[in-house]
Amino acid sequence: MKKLITLIICMFPLLSLAEEVISPNGVLKAKFYVSEGKMTYELFFHEKVIVKPSHLGLEFINWPSMMEDFEMGEVEYSSFDETWKPVWGETSSIRNHYNEMKVTVRQQSTNRHLIIRLRIFNEGLGLRYEFPRQEGLDNVKIKEEHTEFAMTGDHTAYWIPGDYDTDEYEYSISRLSEIRNLEEKARTENATQTAIPAPSTQTSLLMKTDDGLYLNIHEAALVDYSCMHLTLDDKKFVFKSILTPDSKGLKGFIRCPAVSPWRTIMVTDDAREMLASKMILNLNEPCKLEDTSWIHPVKYMGVWWEMMTGAASWGYADFQAIKLGETDYKKLKPAANHAANNNNVKRYIDFASKHGFSQLLVEGWNEGWEDSWQKYDNYSFTKAYPDFNVKELQAYAKAHGMKLMMHHETSASVFNYERQLQDAYRFARDNGYDVVKSGYVGNIFPYGGHHFDQWMNNHYLYCIKEGAKYHLMINGHEAVRPTGLCRTYPNMIGNESARGMEFQATTGCEPKHVCILPFTRLQGGPMDYTPGILEMDVSKVNPNNHAHVKATVCNQLALYVTLYSPLQMAADVPESYERYADAFKFIEDVAIDWDESIYLEAEPAEFITVARKAKGKDDWYIGSVSGQHPHSSDISLSFLDKGRNYLATIYCDAKDADYRNNPASYNIYQKKVNSKTRLKLHTVESGGYAISIKPIE
Amino acid sequence: MKKLITLIICMFPLLSLAEEVISPNGVLKAKFYVSEGKMTYELFFHEKVIVKPSHLGLEFINWPSMMEDFEMGEVEYSSFDETWKPVWGETSSIRNHYNEMKVTVRQQSTNRHLIIRLRIFNEGLGLRYEFPRQEGLDNVKIKEEHTEFAMTGDHTAYWIPGDYDTDEYEYSISRLSEIRNLEEKARTENATQTAIPAPSTQTSLLMKTDDGLYLNIHEAALVDYSCMHLTLDDKKFVFKSILTPDSKGLKGFIRCPAVSPWRTIMVTDDAREMLASKMILNLNEPCKLEDTSWIHPVKYMGVWWEMMTGAASWGYADFQAIKLGETDYKKLKPAANHAANNNNVKRYIDFASKHGFSQLLVEGWNEGWEDSWQKYDNYSFTKAYPDFNVKELQAYAKAHGMKLMMHHETSASVFNYERQLQDAYRFARDNGYDVVKSGYVGNIFPYGGHHFDQWMNNHYLYCIKEGAKYHLMINGHEAVRPTGLCRTYPNMIGNESARGMEFQATTGCEPKHVCILPFTRLQGGPMDYTPGILEMDVSKVNPNNHAHVKATVCNQLALYVTLYSPLQMAADVPESYERYADAFKFIEDVAIDWDESIYLEAEPAEFITVARKAKGKDDWYIGSVSGQHPHSSDISLSFLDKGRNYLATIYCDAKDADYRNNPASYNIYQKKVNSKTRLKLHTVESGGYAISIKPIE
Repeated sequence: MKKLITLIICMFPLLSLAEEVISPNGVLKAKFYVSEGKMTYELFFHEKVIVKPSHLGLEFINWPSMMEDFEMGEVEYSSFDETWKPVWGETSSIRNHYNEMKVTVRQQSTNRHLIIRLRIFNEGLGLRYEFPRQEGLDNVKIKEEHTEFAMTGDHTAYWIPGDYDTDEYEYSISRLSEIRNLEEKARTENATQTAIPAPSTQTSLLMKTDDGLYLNIHEAALVDYSCMHLTLDDKKFVFKSILTPDSKGLKGFIRCPAVSPWRTIMVTDDAREMLASKMILNLNEPCKLEDTSWIHPVKYMGVWWEMMTGAASWGYADFQAIKLGETDYKKLKPAANHAANNNNVKRYIDFASKHGFSQLLVEGWNEGWEDSWQKYDNYSFTKAYPDFNVKELQAYAKAHGMKLMMHHETSASVFNYERQLQDAYRFARDNGYDVVKSGYVGNIFPYGGHHFDQWMNNHYLYCIKEGAKYHLMINGHEAVRPTGLCRTYPNMIGNESARGMEFQATTGCEPKHVCILPFTRLQGGPMDYTPGILEMDVSKVNPNNHAHVKATVCNQLALYVTLYSPLQMAADVPESYERYADAFKFIEDVAIDWDESIYLEAEPAEFITVARKAKGKDDWYIGSVSGQHPHSSDISLSFLDKGRNYLATIYCDAKDADYRNNPASYNIYQKKVNSKTRLKLHTVESGGYAISIKPIE
Repeated sequence: MKKLITLIICMFPLLSLAEEVISPNGVLKAKFYVSEGKMTYELFFHEKVIVKPSHLGLEFINWPSMMEDFEMGEVEYSSFDETWKPVWGETSSIRNHYNEMKVTVRQQSTNRHLIIRLRIFNEGLGLRYEFPRQEGLDNVKIKEEHTEFAMTGDHTAYWIPGDYDTDEYEYSISRLSEIRNLEEKARTENATQTAIPAPSTQTSLLMKTDDGLYLNIHEAALVDYSCMHLTLDDKKFVFKSILTPDSKGLKGFIRCPAVSPWRTIMVTDDAREMLASKMILNLNEPCKLEDTSWIHPVKYMGVWWEMMTGAASWGYADFQAIKLGETDYKKLKPAANHAANNNNVKRYIDFASKHGFSQLLVEGWNEGWEDSWQKYDNYSFTKAYPDFNVKELQAYAKAHGMKLMMHHETSASVFNYERQLQDAYRFARDNGYDVVKSGYVGNIFPYGGHHFDQWMNNHYLYCIKEGAKYHLMINGHEAVRPTGLCRTYPNMIGNESARGMEFQATTGCEPKHVCILPFTRLQGGPMDYTPGILEMDVSKVNPNNHAHVKATVCNQLALYVTLYSPLQMAADVPESYERYADAFKFIEDVAIDWDESIYLEAEPAEFITVARKAKGKDDWYIGSVSGQHPHSSDISLSFLDKGRNYLATIYCDAKDADYRNNPASYNIYQKKVNSKTRLKLHTVESGGYAISIKPIE
């Protein structure tokens, strides 16, 4: 690791001239100044305005606001250049290179100080508020944060509607000026949702300007603060931060000294650079876990899709009122289709172990699913159903070289979960589990706050920190969208926090979806998207379910490469994989941890092609997904070792493939390749290709 | 123990005639019938109407209401007579004797059933709703319970205003028709309060009729349900139940089968009978703790009054923003007056041990008081301040035959408390504590619910149950008012749940207060009132505090007998006890657990005189308090063993005693007494007398 820090301090003159900080490559420039008493910043790309003069400020419940009446104080400049090694990731090392400007501003009427810290990277800007310890700013109750992002025009946005409780929406693509009218339609049904009035969007928000620049607004290092959304002045095209309120409408509590999360703006003229960016990770603190030897990527199957499709049930018995600790499950009549039973789980273990998976997720293993929604004490996290023998099944898995993966659905009765958390984690550890998938479906109960408020954010992080004590990797579903915290806590092995594959069992995900996620949701960290559904006709799993998965088989294969995650599921049922055994080979084969990643092609909503080199190996994998249109891919394999021969196994949509009617039309073939090879491949709408490339010894 | 149960079942004819159940002594009679489809009950005392026809019913959020359209179904009658022994109490055994009527009603339009169970004791009626498991009534969300209590006239009530968060109010005495106009004035300031619109009152509500009957409305066995308050139709004098909402306004969640708490109405023409009643205890379940050998009454002193008066501080340092786990207290500048320091605690131990106390409460011993209100993580319950050495002080206490008493102020950040609860209880147990005083000052944070809602009620009970696992007795302050649960969980050793002595350090408690509490608050269980302030001039403790305690010295002494509690504090500072060493003798001497209790005189707000026989001894103690007027007491000691001689030590207001100007004017003298003795004693307003009576060997 190399590390370089330089520091220059200058006392700013009384004249409010703009201070500037420029990216290491000189392309980006941020200005900060006080204008008519207001903190203001701007952002330029090649001297072209990207963010117009935008104000910063905060309102408090218990103190005078810090919106106006500022004057510039001390300004410090520094540079930072360090390369660090993630525990897992897209690349084996990450360069963290930025220039920094730390500005102290003073509110004249109150004599209070605030620090605005700006870090400028080659691909974007991060800025945050820092609250020094001082008179008149202790124990701050935040009424609202007013951070502006003033756009230069009516950009095209790839957005989901603002919501305090869910991000499981389809993306809409529209001009900023069109969001207002489209938002109601975009707000599809969810088990929990609290709309932020239109026009509003969530972050990470991707935009494209008419002159071909790609912009992204997000936040990094969301710790002990409420999650930021964006409201839009759609006349002036100015976004403004709006924080998630708690049950009483308060937007945050901070104790000084404190810092806000980073507010980030990425700018690039090459969409591939946004995908390759590690800026969000870099804005997070280095790893805080001393021992990370127990953290590892996981490829897993699950007793899951049969429940998602409605073929089987999570509950042991039919729906009824259950009293945990009092209801004797052995006296209940079992439902005919409880999936998490010993025989079925063993059947999955037999299959998954044969195909090289290391873990098997089992949902619906624990008491309480008969009566799960919005209760004080809805689930036990330590009591298995009568037909699920934890010790027997873990032993069976172990004998097959596998582990079971723990599942904790809380249905957002988070206090019931916290009450059991230590016991639940101890139970998991003592029984050989090392990954916990948690879920927060439904309204936060009985708290009445929101999934993305400060208390809940603290809860998710609490689970991650406590989980680390038990050597558990945590994969939170319905938790707040990630903001790069996995750098600091790499046992945060996954998150959902977007519309995932599960929707394909019912209302679906549009073809463009997986061609947007890497620009948005994945900026903050990996997603447990759970790809790998190869049987698109859902009625093959549940005859009563006539949903159709909107993807081709090769699109699904490609996701293992295009949607980076150290936690990758093969989500389909064994029968489907037996049916498409040739395609399934790729899922068996593909790596899940990487030394290198090269984004070869990218256009939001249209296509993403990426090549990745397997960690500690010479094998490469390429994935390419197409979105709302077919795509003709033309890629060079120049990243391969010069003069070395490789065998490529190519899984590609056939010409007549059609995600609607003919999703399983694909070709699989092998080809010798080297660094001079160019590959031209054609993918259909919502299609894709996947390639494994291995040296020929 | 004797136990007698008889059971008669009768199928009720279709005609809706009233079914009746009569108290064992024949004095009380309850009727139940369906009138125009509505469940209706009445209560009679010596055939005189006490509760006029009153309807029962419930509204739900997620099901059709159960208010109307009922028909009578099966009616079962039974009798019960059992005598049980409490772990601690006013008497060594308690008779539970009642007749019961269990009525099944059917809602015709929905074909759902409800059971109304009525238990009639000699002194009152308990009735509750029972929800059988059935179609159309699973996982019930309660919108409101509509239980009526139709009074026969404009009775005199001894009331505090309805509130979802606090019961720390002075009592008002007025006609029912006057409550509306008095309520605003009665609603004095508190750290947390949520008014129920006037006219409303809390339970237990004491009333007196114009013909001299004493009535009380309360509830028993409040488990997994929200606390009931009363709204009043002050034209018709009909009270109606109003349940405490959660953060979202929901009033309760029940899973069938389930039961409501008992709704109770006590009636007697002798105020002493109400004080002696064990009906609320009897309506609770028998003890659920298998081993109760570790539960014992406690007489204690506390490092407390000096903070209450403002002379000393809870916090180690001055107020500032603290980050638990990050703030290094050793680096903070200590406040000059932090009370919970090693030297001061040792000074208290020296004094308390010399005077026979078994425990010393120490508040402000733990990290977080500098920054305590309404935070996510406000207190640590396992980290002591630098100047408070837990192990050293417990050892010091032990060497002096004492223990320290644990204190957990949560400032209602209840989730922070729950997160630490197991560690906190383990810490307490491992360090030799066996009593935990907990506190919930302020608004429930960040939950936003109320102190008396179902989730919070479940929390308090959770603490009691978990505490039992660690052999900890729990004394919850600002928790929901007790409803007799200490029978079931006798480690629930105390509660505040009313305006306590602490108010005498500021705004005071009116003279009548302690002459009402035993009729109301104490019906549900003992109160940690913390009596024993002998220095009424608060400026003697804190020169800057000019409050004056509204009581005479003998009033304070008498409270140890009149306010029954197995947990009795001597709340004043050692200096005060040294100043009034002769009076303090009574506090040293008085017992805290009893074989027998005889209420000799009683009139609400005016006077209460009670004699109690010390557990396992032949010693008797008498306490008499007077309220808003002087009282001339004329009592017979006929309860003493016949033919046995005793020495009585009498502590009584002197003639010129005056709680305002001359509170410490008292006489202490001794007198030989026997079972034929009559004692005539005079007490002043807010005065009293206390007597110890011991056999002359």
